[in-house]
Amino acid sequence: MEKVWRRVDFEPFGKRETCAEGQTLMEAAQRAGVALVAFCGGAGSCGRCRVRVLEGHVSSPTSTEEKALGADALAVGYRLACQTRVLDNVKVYVPLESVGTTQRLEVEGREVATAVVPPVCGYAVEVPAPTLEDLRSDSVRVGDALREQHGIAAIEMDFAVVQELPNRLREQKWQGTVFVRHTGDGREAVRFGAAREVPVGLAVDLGTTKIAAFLLDLHTGKTLAADGEMNPQIAFGEDVMARIAHAMKGNSEALKLRRAVVGSISGLAAKLCQKVNRKPEEIVEAVVVGNTAMHHLFLGLPVAQLGMAPYVPAESNPMDVKARDLGLRFAPGCYVHLLPNVAGFIGADHVAMLLGTRIPEMEGVVLGLDIGTNTELVLKTDSRIITCSTASGPAFEGAHIRDGMRAASGAIEWVDLEDGEIRWQTIGKVAPVGMCGSGVLDAVAALRIAGIMDARGRLGEHPRVQRGKDGPEFVLVDAERTGHGRAIALTRKDVAAIQLAKGAIRAGIELLMGEGGVRAEQLDKVILAGAFGTYLSVGSVLTIGLLPPVPAEKVEQVGNAAGVGARLALISLEERERARQYAVRAEYLELTTLPQFAEVFARAMILD
Amino acid sequence: MEKVWRRVDFEPFGKRETCAEGQTLMEAAQRAGVALVAFCGGAGSCGRCRVRVLEGHVSSPTSTEEKALGADALAVGYRLACQTRVLDNVKVYVPLESVGTTQRLEVEGREVATAVVPPVCGYAVEVPAPTLEDLRSDSVRVGDALREQHGIAAIEMDFAVVQELPNRLREQKWQGTVFVRHTGDGREAVRFGAAREVPVGLAVDLGTTKIAAFLLDLHTGKTLAADGEMNPQIAFGEDVMARIAHAMKGNSEALKLRRAVVGSISGLAAKLCQKVNRKPEEIVEAVVVGNTAMHHLFLGLPVAQLGMAPYVPAESNPMDVKARDLGLRFAPGCYVHLLPNVAGFIGADHVAMLLGTRIPEMEGVVLGLDIGTNTELVLKTDSRIITCSTASGPAFEGAHIRDGMRAASGAIEWVDLEDGEIRWQTIGKVAPVGMCGSGVLDAVAALRIAGIMDARGRLGEHPRVQRGKDGPEFVLVDAERTGHGRAIALTRKDVAAIQLAKGAIRAGIELLMGEGGVRAEQLDKVILAGAFGTYLSVGSVLTIGLLPPVPAEKVEQVGNAAGVGARLALISLEERERARQYAVRAEYLELTTLPQFAEVFARAMILD
Repeated sequence: MEKVWRRVDFEPFGKRETCAEGQTLMEAAQRAGVALVAFCGGAGSCGRCRVRVLEGHVSSPTSTEEKALGADALAVGYRLACQTRVLDNVKVYVPLESVGTTQRLEVEGREVATAVVPPVCGYAVEVPAPTLEDLRSDSVRVGDALREQHGIAAIEMDFAVVQELPNRLREQKWQGTVFVRHTGDGREAVRFGAAREVPVGLAVDLGTTKIAAFLLDLHTGKTLAADGEMNPQIAFGEDVMARIAHAMKGNSEALKLRRAVVGSISGLAAKLCQKVNRKPEEIVEAVVVGNTAMHHLFLGLPVAQLGMAPYVPAESNPMDVKARDLGLRFAPGCYVHLLPNVAGFIGADHVAMLLGTRIPEMEGVVLGLDIGTNTELVLKTDSRIITCSTASGPAFEGAHIRDGMRAASGAIEWVDLEDGEIRWQTIGKVAPVGMCGSGVLDAVAALRIAGIMDARGRLGEHPRVQRGKDGPEFVLVDAERTGHGRAIALTRKDVAAIQLAKGAIRAGIELLMGEGGVRAEQLDKVILAGAFGTYLSVGSVLTIGLLPPVPAEKVEQVGNAAGVGARLALISLEERERARQYAVRAEYLELTTLPQFAEVFARAMILD
Repeated sequence: MEKVWRRVDFEPFGKRETCAEGQTLMEAAQRAGVALVAFCGGAGSCGRCRVRVLEGHVSSPTSTEEKALGADALAVGYRLACQTRVLDNVKVYVPLESVGTTQRLEVEGREVATAVVPPVCGYAVEVPAPTLEDLRSDSVRVGDALREQHGIAAIEMDFAVVQELPNRLREQKWQGTVFVRHTGDGREAVRFGAAREVPVGLAVDLGTTKIAAFLLDLHTGKTLAADGEMNPQIAFGEDVMARIAHAMKGNSEALKLRRAVVGSISGLAAKLCQKVNRKPEEIVEAVVVGNTAMHHLFLGLPVAQLGMAPYVPAESNPMDVKARDLGLRFAPGCYVHLLPNVAGFIGADHVAMLLGTRIPEMEGVVLGLDIGTNTELVLKTDSRIITCSTASGPAFEGAHIRDGMRAASGAIEWVDLEDGEIRWQTIGKVAPVGMCGSGVLDAVAALRIAGIMDARGRLGEHPRVQRGKDGPEFVLVDAERTGHGRAIALTRKDVAAIQLAKGAIRAGIELLMGEGGVRAEQLDKVILAGAFGTYLSVGSVLTIGLLPPVPAEKVEQVGNAAGVGARLALISLEERERARQYAVRAEYLELTTLPQFAEVFARAMILD
C-alpha cells in the first residue's frame, strides 16, 4: 500500500517531522530528535512518555492508556506517545518530564553520559479546596488533580505523606508539587512539597574508610553539592573483617556500627542541603553503594555468615527500602535504593564501579581494579565478566607502614631517585611528616630501578641505607628536613607489607586471567579505580609488577568510579536496570579455594 | 468442528471430569467442583491457580505463566490453570493453597459465606545450604526454592525479613515456611517462619467505645480466638468529637491517643495468640476497621479537618501500611490493611458493616443502622446506596442518663409495664444498680403505651411518678430493692436525652428516605447492627418511633457486623475488592446542610 505522509509538530520545541500515517508519536519523536523517556521500551507500562495532542487526528486510546492516564486526562488530549498512532497532521505538546535529558558526569577528565530517567519526578498541582458539594478526601483530591492536570493515574500515596498532607495543603493554599516515584508499573507519591520545588536526591558511596555523598537535581541529573568524611565505624575496626568481628559481639554492637553510619549519612545530607538552601526532608530518593559488609551493616542485616566460609551475603538482589526504616529523616515516603551485591566480597560498590566505568560494555579485553584494603578485580573478556576479591590490606593507604600516613597535607606522595639523588613531593607542598601509599609505592619502585633493592625486597649497600631497630632501612628524608624532626625511612617491614599487598593483587589478576584464558599481551585496557588507584604513579605500579606487563598508555586512572555509579543509579532507572544486568552477568571467582592460589601468591610477591 | 472429549483427573481429591479439548484446566476444575482461586478472574495476573500437570499433554506455557512461575517450575509441570488448555487425557495435582475453601462466619445466628482467598499464604521450603560451589545469597536461595518447589517466581523480600533470614535458616536447618503476600500482580515475602507454621492474621474492630479483636487461620479462614476491651482513648474523651478536640491540643496529645490504641491492639493480639499457643510476631496480616476519626488517630493522620466543616478525611482510599510503621510488632513484613472511608463521618467501620451484612447486594429496599454515639445509616434502593451519619449521642449506651450505666451486670436491660405493674430484668439476674440503653428505651416505650407519658415526653399522673429535684420522674425500682439502696428512676431529662437521640436517628432515616424517594411501606428490610442494635427490643424501637412504621418481622438484628466485615476482609482479597466497590458506590448525604433538617429533626423528637 502507498504510504501517506503526515506532519507532526512538537511543542514547545518547535520541531517538525514528517512520518508515515500509522506510525507512533514515539517513532516520530525519535526521528525529530525529541528524546522521549521510554523506560519500558514502548510497551506502555511505564507511562513515562506522556504527551498532549493539541491538534489533529490520532488513533483511539488503548486500554493500557486508559489505565495509565485515566479518562479525564485522555479527554483533554493526554496520550502515551508509544501507544498513539498518527492519522493526520498533528501538533503535540511534550511535558518537560517526558523528555529524557542527557547528563554527563565527569570522572577525572573522563565523562559518562546517561539519559536522565529519574525515579522520582515532581508535578505541580492546583488542588480545589473542599466545599459542602465536594467532600473528597485530601488524598483523593490530590490524586485527582495529578490525573487531571498531568495524566498520571492510579498513584499510591505513602501513609506518611498523607500524615503531612492536610496541613501542607491548607498552609500552601491548595498548591504544591507531588513527587511521584515511578518504578516498573507502579507509581507512589513520596512527598507533597512546595509549589515549584525541584526534586533532589542523595547518592552515597559508603566506603570502609570514607563516605562520599552527592546531592543531585533529579530533573536535570546535575550534581548540586558534594562532600565526604571518614567512616566513623573506623573506631570499631579498620577493615571489613574487623567490623564484622565487632558486629558479631552482639546486637547492640552491630547497632552501634549501624547508627554510626546512619548518623554520618544524615550529617552529610544536612551539610549538602544547607549548601544549596534545601532541607534533608526534601530528599525524595537516595542511592547507597558499599561493599557487602557495609551494605549489610547499614541495613541491619546479619554479617556472621559473611565472616566465615563460604561467605554468602544475606541479600544480593537490588533493594528499595524506606529511608525511615533505616533511620534517615528524608522525605516522608523516600526510598533508599541499594544496588545488587555479587558475592560476599564483591558488593554493590563494585557494581557501581562497573556502572561508572562501563567496563562490561567496553570493546576488547579489559581488566579493572578498585584498590583498597580489599581490592576488587574484574576481567571483561569477549564473553565473560569475572570478578574476584583479594585481601590487599591497608598498606597502599599508608597504614601498617612505619612512617606511613593517609593522603593528607605533609604526606610524601611522589618519590623519584635519579642519578643517586632522591627527590620527593608532599601534599600541600609543606615539610614532610610521612608517606602516603603512592609515596611508599614510588619509593619501592625507585629503589628497585636503582638496584638498591632486590626482587625479594632486600635492601643492598647505599649511603642512605642504615640499620634501624627493625633491620636495614632506607632514609628518604633526614630528620632535620621533616616536619617533626624525625627521619622518614622505608623499613624492610614496610617493603614486606607492600609485597604482601602487591602479591595479593597480582595473584588475583593472574588467577582471573587464567580463569578467563587471557594473557597479558591480550589486555586492551587496565582501569584503576578508587581513590588510591587515582593517585599512584602508573610507572611505579608497572615497575613493581602490581600489574601484568602492559604498556603504560593502556592504563587508565578513573578516580571514584563507584561514586559516579551511585550518581548514575540515582538519576536513571535505566542505569539501575543496567546495574542489575551487570550483577547477573558477573561471575564470582573464589580465589582462596583454587589449588594453585598459594603458589601464585608466593610468586606474585616478588618485585619484578 | 466436532468436539473431542478429554478426561481430567484432579489429585489429591480423586475427582474426574470430562471436558472438550481446548478448554482450560480452570473450566474443567469448575465443572469438577474443585474451587480454584481465581482472584484476577482468569487473566493470569494473580498467579493463584497454580496446579501441577502430572500426566498428559497440555498447551505450551504462555508468557504470563513464564513470568508468574519461572522456567524451573514450568519444567516440573507447574502451570496456571486459567492459562492451560487440555489437549489430551490429563492428570493434575492441585496444591492446597490453590483451592478457595469456603468459610462461613456466624453473626448472631446469621451466616455470611465467603471463599477464602487469603492475602498471605505459607509455603514450606527446603533450602540447600551454601557450599563453595553454591554461593547464592540467603535471600536468593529462598527465592529459588520457592520458585522451584512451588512455582512462585519474582517475589520481593521485605528487608526486615532478610534481617531475620540468615539466623533462622541456620537455626531451622535450612527448612521453613515462607509467608508470601499476594496482592494484585505483586508478591512479597513478609515472614520466614518455622516448618509447618500455619499463617495467622488479626482482625480488629476499632470502635470509639470498644475494641474487638479476632485471630484467624488464614488458610482455612477459621476464627481461632476472639476478645475485646474498652477503648483506652475513653480517658481522653467519650465521643469522636471529644477525641478530635483532644488530638487538636497538639502533636504530643494526638500521639497519646495513637499510642493508647496501638497498645490496646498489641495487648489484645498477645492475649489472643497466647490462647492458641502462637506469638504476635507470627501474625502475617492484619485488618483494622474503625470510623474515620479512629482510623485517622490510629494512623497518625491529622484530624483537625475532620472536626470542622466540610469534615473531609485526609485519606479515604483503602490502605496497606506496614505494621511496624504503626508501632505493632507483628511479623517483620506484616501489613495492616485498612478498608476505605466514605466520608468524614462514614468510615471504614461502616464499609465493614456493609461487608458483614451484604446490604448492597440484598434484594429490594433495605435500611441499615449502626447505632452508637454516632449512628451511621445506609439506604439501599434499586439503584443507589446512600449513607449518612447522625450524632445520636451516648444516651442509647446508658450515658447521660441519671441512673444509666453500660450494659454490665446489674443493669436493667428489659422493662415492661403490664396492667399497671412494672416488671424488669437485669443482666446477670442480680439486684439492679442502673439502666442500660435497652432498659431506658423499654421504659420510655412502656410509659408511652400505658399513656403515662405523652408524645412530647411529659410524665402524667401515676402512683410511681414523683417529683425529684430535676422535675417529675418515674420510679422503676424502689430504693429497698436496688443493689445500692437508692431508687432507680427515669427523669424528664433522661427522656429528653432519649428524645434527642431518637430524633437524630429518625430524622436521618426520613431525610435518607426522602433522598432515595422511598416511603416506609416500601422498606423490605431494616437491619440493626452494632452492639446496641442487637440488645434493644424491636417492639420498643417501633413504639417510640425510632424506626419508621414497619412490621416487626422486617427488622433484623445482626450484632457486630463491622467485626464480621473486618474478618471477611482479613481472609479474602475478593472481600477487599468488594469493600472497595461498596465504598465507591456509596453516596454520602450531609444532613446538617439540608434546608429541611431542623424541621424534620424537631418533628422526629416526638414520641409517636
